[in-house]
Amino acid sequence: MSMKLSALAEKLGLEYTGADREISGVNTLEKAGPDDLSFLVNPKYLPQLEITKAGCVLTSGSYAEKVPCALVSANVYMDLARVVDVFARPQGCLTGIHELAFIHPDAQVDPSATVHPFAFVGAGAVIGAETVLFAGVYVGEETVIGSKCILYPNCVVMGGLTVGDRVILQPGAVLGGDGYGYAQTPLGHMKIPQIGTVSIEDDVEVGSNTAIDRAALDVTRVRRGTKIDNLVQVGHNVDIGENCLIIGQTGIGGSTVIGNGVVLAGQTGVPDNVKIGDGAMVAAQSGILSDVEPGSRMAGSPAINAKDYFRAVGVCTPKLPELFKRVKKLEKELAALLAAGGASDE
Amino acid sequence: MSMKLSALAEKLGLEYTGADREISGVNTLEKAGPDDLSFLVNPKYLPQLEITKAGCVLTSGSYAEKVPCALVSANVYMDLARVVDVFARPQGCLTGIHELAFIHPDAQVDPSATVHPFAFVGAGAVIGAETVLFAGVYVGEETVIGSKCILYPNCVVMGGLTVGDRVILQPGAVLGGDGYGYAQTPLGHMKIPQIGTVSIEDDVEVGSNTAIDRAALDVTRVRRGTKIDNLVQVGHNVDIGENCLIIGQTGIGGSTVIGNGVVLAGQTGVPDNVKIGDGAMVAAQSGILSDVEPGSRMAGSPAINAKDYFRAVGVCTPKLPELFKRVKKLEKELAALLAAGGASDE
Amino acid sequence: MSMKLSALAEKLGLEYTGADREISGVNTLEKAGPDDLSFLVNPKYLPQLEITKAGCVLTSGSYAEKVPCALVSANVYMDLARVVDVFARPQGCLTGIHELAFIHPDAQVDPSATVHPFAFVGAGAVIGAETVLFAGVYVGEETVIGSKCILYPNCVVMGGLTVGDRVILQPGAVLGGDGYGYAQTPLGHMKIPQIGTVSIEDDVEVGSNTAIDRAALDVTRVRRGTKIDNLVQVGHNVDIGENCLIIGQTGIGGSTVIGNGVVLAGQTGVPDNVKIGDGAMVAAQSGILSDVEPGSRMAGSPAINAKDYFRAVGVCTPKLPELFKRVKKLEKELAALLAAGGASDE
Repeated sequence: MSMKLSALAEKLGLEYTGADREISGVNTLEKAGPDDLSFLVNPKYLPQLEITKAGCVLTSGSYAEKVPCALVSANVYMDLARVVDVFARPQGCLTGIHELAFIHPDAQVDPSATVHPFAFVGAGAVIGAETVLFAGVYVGEETVIGSKCILYPNCVVMGGLTVGDRVILQPGAVLGGDGYGYAQTPLGHMKIPQIGTVSIEDDVEVGSNTAIDRAALDVTRVRRGTKIDNLVQVGHNVDIGENCLIIGQTGIGGSTVIGNGVVLAGQTGVPDNVKIGDGAMVAAQSGILSDVEPGSRMAGSPAINAKDYFRAVGVCTPKLPELFKRVKKLEKELAALLAAGGASDE
Repeated sequence: MSMKLSALAEKLGLEYTGADREISGVNTLEKAGPDDLSFLVNPKYLPQLEITKAGCVLTSGSYAEKVPCALVSANVYMDLARVVDVFARPQGCLTGIHELAFIHPDAQVDPSATVHPFAFVGAGAVIGAETVLFAGVYVGEETVIGSKCILYPNCVVMGGLTVGDRVILQPGAVLGGDGYGYAQTPLGHMKIPQIGTVSIEDDVEVGSNTAIDRAALDVTRVRRGTKIDNLVQVGHNVDIGENCLIIGQTGIGGSTVIGNGVVLAGQTGVPDNVKIGDGAMVAAQSGILSDVEPGSRMAGSPAINAKDYFRAVGVCTPKLPELFKRVKKLEKELAALLAAGGASDE
Repeated sequence: MSMKLSALAEKLGLEYTGADREISGVNTLEKAGPDDLSFLVNPKYLPQLEITKAGCVLTSGSYAEKVPCALVSANVYMDLARVVDVFARPQGCLTGIHELAFIHPDAQVDPSATVHPFAFVGAGAVIGAETVLFAGVYVGEETVIGSKCILYPNCVVMGGLTVGDRVILQPGAVLGGDGYGYAQTPLGHMKIPQIGTVSIEDDVEVGSNTAIDRAALDVTRVRRGTKIDNLVQVGHNVDIGENCLIIGQTGIGGSTVIGNGVVLAGQTGVPDNVKIGDGAMVAAQSGILSDVEPGSRMAGSPAINAKDYFRAVGVCTPKLPELFKRVKKLEKELAALLAAGGASDE
């Protein structure tokens, strides 16, 4: 894949500076060669502009004049996504429906879909147009998958679920495993069968080996545009809003409701039955204990306001040994003073 | 599936109030319709009793009179499990042993078992009566799986393991991957082959993408009735007692021994070689450092007694910036006093 | 499998004490029988030497005289690895390339490799000599896997990756899922296609259900001899050095660089874009915030020097409620003194 810079600029509706040239790929400032386009957003990397061998640099107007050839953008990350998309080659080396796939006679697979060997499509399942099921994917009975989805190898979508359009499931992601629900009885933990479902809306992405449980009753929901990273757990009956970022190894307990545009950083824990308001941002490794107001910034375990947390735990906690010494010194001095004062009272 | 309330009540040995009616499903108070049964345990949801459209509510005697039609229970969660079980439809759309499964000629698969396409059963493996192996399941050589087990898609049970009766493995669960054992040598980390096994006893459930390692030597054991959630790690040679609840993303280090009835809440970390006594409960995100007494309540990282933890970290830590100010004020005042006193000594 | 102790000793180049005998396995001091070899490293287990039924004990010279029959070693763990290797039987019950595997006509699979049913090898992929692909393994197009590798069931190695020799991937491990990269746009999070790759060098091991993401551009790298445990997340463009130990459920953010010989204990979190110096060791559940110097010992979240952490958080934090009381007492006493002093000033 290779194209003229002028053609690329036209395709994306961007201006460029410098001479036209052939562009055959995208790479970092450090690794790019004369046929590659690179990019600059973070001023931290400005020194690399001096030494990069990149044929052209995608950057904002202010930096464009620092290089002989620039593709000028008002939103570099967004245009980077668009540029890379031009050069990206999708994964996979087969088309059509492979004879080693299992497709139940009562399933409906769109003729434009791709189904790799060892994929399984159950009775009554529906697979939309241009959707790709890689090897080892399981789609259970009555599950409906929209169009232009990609289900990477060994994903599991259990029966009775709904998946929107343009949804991407990374390898090993599991949707619709049973929620964790047991009744305590004198004979031990009795399983409460999990008869609810999971609904994944349009443009959601789910990371490798992430697990999203089916509801006990009703539905576990991930709304439009939310991106979930690897190894995340989403409990039964959770409702995650639109355009959230749920980062690696985060766990979300049952029946919790998460608003729109929420960011949960890596390894965060959210318990059962709380509400996280729209636009809240939670720092990595936080442990939420109760409802979080919209727009909050939270950190710590148990999580509190992030500023307070970094002051209390980041600044003060390491100084505790010294504080204990200071208090001891105060106690001694005051005791001495009181003893002296006591003496003088006599 | 639909049945008379009277028939349902009789089947479960429960009384009902109000007129008999047809029940065709179970749902939440909020979502249930006139043909559904719903339930109430938590008084927090009492207001929903006023507005629910549920045809009948499963609840305890004290709340039963608040609705026109109640199914009366002394243990609502337990009877909810039993009611839902009546209406639950098991996952899966095939029966029998599918021709696209691989079953080694030396394996023994009970004729009442179900084996889906792309499941693998190794040499000498035994699959018990009415057990279901979904697509992509791997059962290694010489592994013995009991009766009425469900192995959901893409579970892996490596060779030489033992799995009891009525065990449920959610999708992507891995039993018997190698434990993490290396000898430090001048040439780097040398793998210690892991030649032990895993034993999963009756009525255990293992969550999606959870990993339970085989022992170095000897056996990693999960005892009867224990329920393990998603994305949990159980290290080699661990011994987990009966009826424990091991909640999502918890990690348990090698050779640790966990008693009966222990609860480890989400994202807890337990190190190698410790003992957790019977009935201990550990709060979410705790980091255990050493042995835990039976019946303890632990929290924090490092974990201490839960009450002490919430007082120290939950209450005091956020007030540290203020405490530092108070100590500074004391120091100033005392210094001034001493200076004055010193002066008066002259 | 069974052999004379004399033959075993000769094979390993070790001396033994006591009478020659038949050895047929390896087990713990507690479980070993008269035909088993056991081992002792930790003096904590010395009392078990008195009661073990092991036919022979692998141990260092100082303990060897305490048992009637010893295999004497200067590095017991290393020789244990070597002994166990003699008795270990590799997993798997098939040889050759199974007819139910899918191998693309343009792939190259070494004739000495083993490919189980339902394994998938894409176009242009290369599988080296004596490498074993278990059932359900996916190897994407153009991916190159070296020799003597073991890919356990349901591992996924996406297209375009490079895997060295003697690499072991435990069940469900995923290499080359997309990194987590999105551009923020007025229309929501726009996916930045991840067109980089993953390189796994020789002698690396990757645990069950661990996920190592492909780079956005360029490469995510795990260098020679590094051992990664279960359920670990490695973000895009991470570079992990040689001979590291990355323990269960640790998460490493994008573009982070980890030196050689680093140890990250369980459930550690490392953010994007930091550097961890050679030989650094990080305690379990730590949350790294910024660069870590070579040879450091870190602990806590946010992580600080481990000694300081255990003093501040391990020792001082639990005493905070008492400290608050002491400060309050000081305040009262000083206020009383000042009041009295104030009075005396009149």
